[in-house]
Amino acid sequence: MISDKSLLLKTRQFLPGPTPIVSSNGFGTSVENIQYHRTENFYQVVTSCREKLARVMQTKSQPLIITSSGTGAMEAAVVNLTSEGDEVLVVNAGKFGERWSLLCQSYNCNVHELPVAVGDGLNLELFEESIKSKPKLKACFIQAYETSTGLCLPVEKISSILKAHSQALFVVDGISALCAQDLKMDSWHIDCLIGGSQKGFGVPPGLSFIALSSVAMEQFSDRQCFYFDLKREFKGQKKGVTAWTPAITLLEVLDQSLSKIEEIGLNNLIEHHSLLAQSVKLALKELGFVPLNEELCSNTLTAVYPPDGIDAKKLIQHLREKYKVICAGGQAGLSGKIVRFSHLGFVDTMDVLSGIAAVEFSLKDLGIDIRLGSGVGAFMQNLGKE
Amino acid sequence: MISDKSLLLKTRQFLPGPTPIVSSNGFGTSVENIQYHRTENFYQVVTSCREKLARVMQTKSQPLIITSSGTGAMEAAVVNLTSEGDEVLVVNAGKFGERWSLLCQSYNCNVHELPVAVGDGLNLELFEESIKSKPKLKACFIQAYETSTGLCLPVEKISSILKAHSQALFVVDGISALCAQDLKMDSWHIDCLIGGSQKGFGVPPGLSFIALSSVAMEQFSDRQCFYFDLKREFKGQKKGVTAWTPAITLLEVLDQSLSKIEEIGLNNLIEHHSLLAQSVKLALKELGFVPLNEELCSNTLTAVYPPDGIDAKKLIQHLREKYKVICAGGQAGLSGKIVRFSHLGFVDTMDVLSGIAAVEFSLKDLGIDIRLGSGVGAFMQNLGKE
Repeated sequence: MISDKSLLLKTRQFLPGPTPIVSSNGFGTSVENIQYHRTENFYQVVTSCREKLARVMQTKSQPLIITSSGTGAMEAAVVNLTSEGDEVLVVNAGKFGERWSLLCQSYNCNVHELPVAVGDGLNLELFEESIKSKPKLKACFIQAYETSTGLCLPVEKISSILKAHSQALFVVDGISALCAQDLKMDSWHIDCLIGGSQKGFGVPPGLSFIALSSVAMEQFSDRQCFYFDLKREFKGQKKGVTAWTPAITLLEVLDQSLSKIEEIGLNNLIEHHSLLAQSVKLALKELGFVPLNEELCSNTLTAVYPPDGIDAKKLIQHLREKYKVICAGGQAGLSGKIVRFSHLGFVDTMDVLSGIAAVEFSLKDLGIDIRLGSGVGAFMQNLGKE
Repeated sequence: MISDKSLLLKTRQFLPGPTPIVSSNGFGTSVENIQYHRTENFYQVVTSCREKLARVMQTKSQPLIITSSGTGAMEAAVVNLTSEGDEVLVVNAGKFGERWSLLCQSYNCNVHELPVAVGDGLNLELFEESIKSKPKLKACFIQAYETSTGLCLPVEKISSILKAHSQALFVVDGISALCAQDLKMDSWHIDCLIGGSQKGFGVPPGLSFIALSSVAMEQFSDRQCFYFDLKREFKGQKKGVTAWTPAITLLEVLDQSLSKIEEIGLNNLIEHHSLLAQSVKLALKELGFVPLNEELCSNTLTAVYPPDGIDAKKLIQHLREKYKVICAGGQAGLSGKIVRFSHLGFVDTMDVLSGIAAVEFSLKDLGIDIRLGSGVGAFMQNLGKE
């Protein structure tokens, strides 16, 4: 008798959280359930994400997933791996390098900074000297890509210099590089690698990722921490259990996105971004833009000075208002001086082509005498070459 | 000539983040843009959310929005408002009270705990004595609702006792109470009130909220912190600018949800939850369940011991497997002993009615001789009374 009633039943949750969310139909007309995070089903989502993340990070270690922006994972690295007074070296090539310094300072590390000027690359000889002169160095912090300038740092080379002369932990912010750039965590001896959902993974913001090498796992500090306590997270996430309520819906999107990345193939995806970046740079140069750095460009963002006679801020505003093409400008000292044209996440060739066409129209609108189609042509010719 | 081209244009973003997300149609066939968080449009979303949150929290102060679980906001309270060695009092009525203690301990506060046993309420005389005996008390931490037992703590009374004898800050975890319970932050002299997106707000998990009184705003500690640095957040969020990339999509849902709450009316929503809770308790008692606490029940969760002869774990499993009705069990010492039947978020009367019907069917399946419809009847009669 009663068994009939199990037919066609909808799932109904009466949990202390997550609770049904507001549906677009309004209150009371329908209920949308969010998967409960304390179930085998969801533990499998976490585990599946961690396994696939490990493959993107090219490591045998198991990355952790944190509900925070990428800065949260950066703080987790500093708080879990350093102690008060530790000597640390920060390669500061811009706003995100500066963030490492601010973080390490706020946790009372003894911070040495190696600045990299806009347009320059890291001076590897200076870096080597700096490492050699600090026998007690606890950790070295860098970005794989410095997003404020589009600079690509030579992670593998930096690692081999560091590891040749020091026991220091090598901590890499790969937030804007992962999925678009080889970052071989294990074979390059990266001790801590950090990512964020809203970059190459094509997932909304709200999740960050952090993987630790076995060397780093043996060097947890005794610092006070709670939300970012990685020891606790490792213990739970081994079974798919996050310490705190995670951003469940974002994890579900992440799981899908990582499957899509596996379907595409990591190497193909990196190649896609690399070719896009190269083609964008050629197109923008054709139109009179000047890259901040000619050689050391990231695969995910092309930062350029505008052609003579064009104001960067005005161009960005024009692109947005007239063509609904939204680019970022410069930050801090580069504010108003540059255009940052990004192409990371699930961006395809035609998306970028449309953006370049809009740049061409805008230059023309603003009085620059260009032959329409020349930027798009350069872009297409580079893509089409054998 | 060129102006035609601005017709019918789709928005295309080429930002360093957020990036286009993976669409359900797969890679390359369409691009879904996420609103950029460094725009006037998004600053307005943040500002609108903060203004509406302030009305739910019944305060003139401006709550902050953090991308983290509720525990992140709890940590923010401890790290921003206490210093090492500070004397603090924690009312510990269960798993979430314990979390305050663990947090304060991990930040080296001098923690005094006032335990509340399962089934009891807070002994207000003991509380008063405890406050009187601690002239240097820095802060008192409580839950409005202790979600592990469904206990409702008398926040207003606790506050008036505390404020009569002490300068201590009054910190209230309202995570599972807000939207379902009056929490008059200003008139009850709450110094710090905390909420979470995935509870009464009916938004997926990933956002937490924290409001500070003007008294608390003058007592920021000098502790090291970064991601949870509330001073920095206040400075930026005044203009709608979060310090770090926020969970943009969740903020958009929050904005909608808060508008829906205003449309319903906060008092009506609280009344709705109160009536639901009362009716659920009557229905479950009719079916032989015994509430953990007869009088001091939260409006969002009803915690009960099962009828004689019924194993709580087995009942929860049966409800899930046969009727797809998902309830939570007990935590820690209550594991396997109780059923927690929650009704918070955008839950309507018929949702809860279905849950009670499934409980009745399950009891019958498990061999308990009840008259089918008696629980649902009690529920409906309480709702239908004048």
